[in-house]
Amino acid sequence: MNEQVTAVSLAVSTVIFALRDDDDNGRSSLRIPLVRRIREPFAGRWALPGGPIEAAESLGEAAGRNLLETTGLEPTYLEQLYAFGDVERSAGERVVSIVYWALVRPAEADRATVGDNVRWFPADELPELAFDHNEIVAYALWRLRTKLEYSRIAHAFIGETFTIAELRGVHEAILQRELDPANFRRQIESSKAIIDTGERVTGARHRPPKLYRYDSSVSLTENGPLSRP
Amino acid sequence: MNEQVTAVSLAVSTVIFALRDDDDNGRSSLRIPLVRRIREPFAGRWALPGGPIEAAESLGEAAGRNLLETTGLEPTYLEQLYAFGDVERSAGERVVSIVYWALVRPAEADRATVGDNVRWFPADELPELAFDHNEIVAYALWRLRTKLEYSRIAHAFIGETFTIAELRGVHEAILQRELDPANFRRQIESSKAIIDTGERVTGARHRPPKLYRYDSSVSLTENGPLSRP
Repeated sequence: MNEQVTAVSLAVSTVIFALRDDDDNGRSSLRIPLVRRIREPFAGRWALPGGPIEAAESLGEAAGRNLLETTGLEPTYLEQLYAFGDVERSAGERVVSIVYWALVRPAEADRATVGDNVRWFPADELPELAFDHNEIVAYALWRLRTKLEYSRIAHAFIGETFTIAELRGVHEAILQRELDPANFRRQIESSKAIIDTGERVTGARHRPPKLYRYDSSVSLTENGPLSRP
Repeated sequence: MNEQVTAVSLAVSTVIFALRDDDDNGRSSLRIPLVRRIREPFAGRWALPGGPIEAAESLGEAAGRNLLETTGLEPTYLEQLYAFGDVERSAGERVVSIVYWALVRPAEADRATVGDNVRWFPADELPELAFDHNEIVAYALWRLRTKLEYSRIAHAFIGETFTIAELRGVHEAILQRELDPANFRRQIESSKAIIDTGERVTGARHRPPKLYRYDSSVSLTENGPLSRP
């Protein structure tokens, strides 16, 4: 092991997923915020929010700072995704980008900086992005959809308490397909991931649906020894 | 997104797991090769094999090359684990290390360079290593044990065909605990991960055990869009 200095430079980028209401069909869809590049290479193209790493900050701190500076977002969930370092990915320069991903609730997403140079895009319908960022988003989407099956990842998109139908809506938006309501209820109830709060939705309905919460004893992430409190 | 140049330097390291026969109890245990550092910082301490990234190689290529140069190992399975970049991890210098992990079969492990400066250690009983390498190995062990539950990761440790008992031995060595033979057989058969080859172990036994193989239509890794052929 020789941790020698090398000429390759380093950056961080973040893929941020949020569920936003769709204008046309009344359902939610998965969206990501992109930043328009104002200089070369790829001036004018949309790109993932990101930037350089300062000497005095960890990788996660660098990801969080760059995200805040470019979009105003401060997600509570920020996890390392993958380091992208193909030789040809950065138009002549040699840049390795350590990519984080973040999941934000709609209320957090609404706090994002609005302006000509930040815009939310449907995660499945992106223009041609700068660098290899289309490939990065495709990988992040795949990871999100894979993780949904065996973890509590949907939690990051909804409130503390929720109905089974709301939770199904989150899964449908991420997976981009409809799920059978009875099957979904059976699966999620048998998974022991959620807990009946004993409360019900308030309102005038005859049989208001039950409210559930996630079992907080189970960590949202699965970083094991790397998990932070 | 501004992929700017930064002063932080970059290295790759690899955690290589192999099952080696234990001298004392006749069973296999999980071992990793370490390299003794011959210069500061941490001169004399054991460390993960690794080194710098060259301008013309991808991260995976850099990991493979450094591994070959330091240990003589050329594993068929090499996957990115995590990028470690805490500010204080590298004794004054600021080095981000992108860590890969590799799994090797015993025959590959035997081809490793033997010398004063390369030695195999039991993965659960390491000395104090250079840098944050103890933490890195702990994380790699956690990932290996977690992955074992839901993927075909044990495949990387055994031959093309195997008996259920051999496969159970691999799982026991990785998890460091005994598994009930009947339960293990039921679980692995119901998982559809393995296929009955129709062959049996040759030899003089009255009822030679069946030979199985993994379903090769299922990828060993789970990198999705990043998977290589």
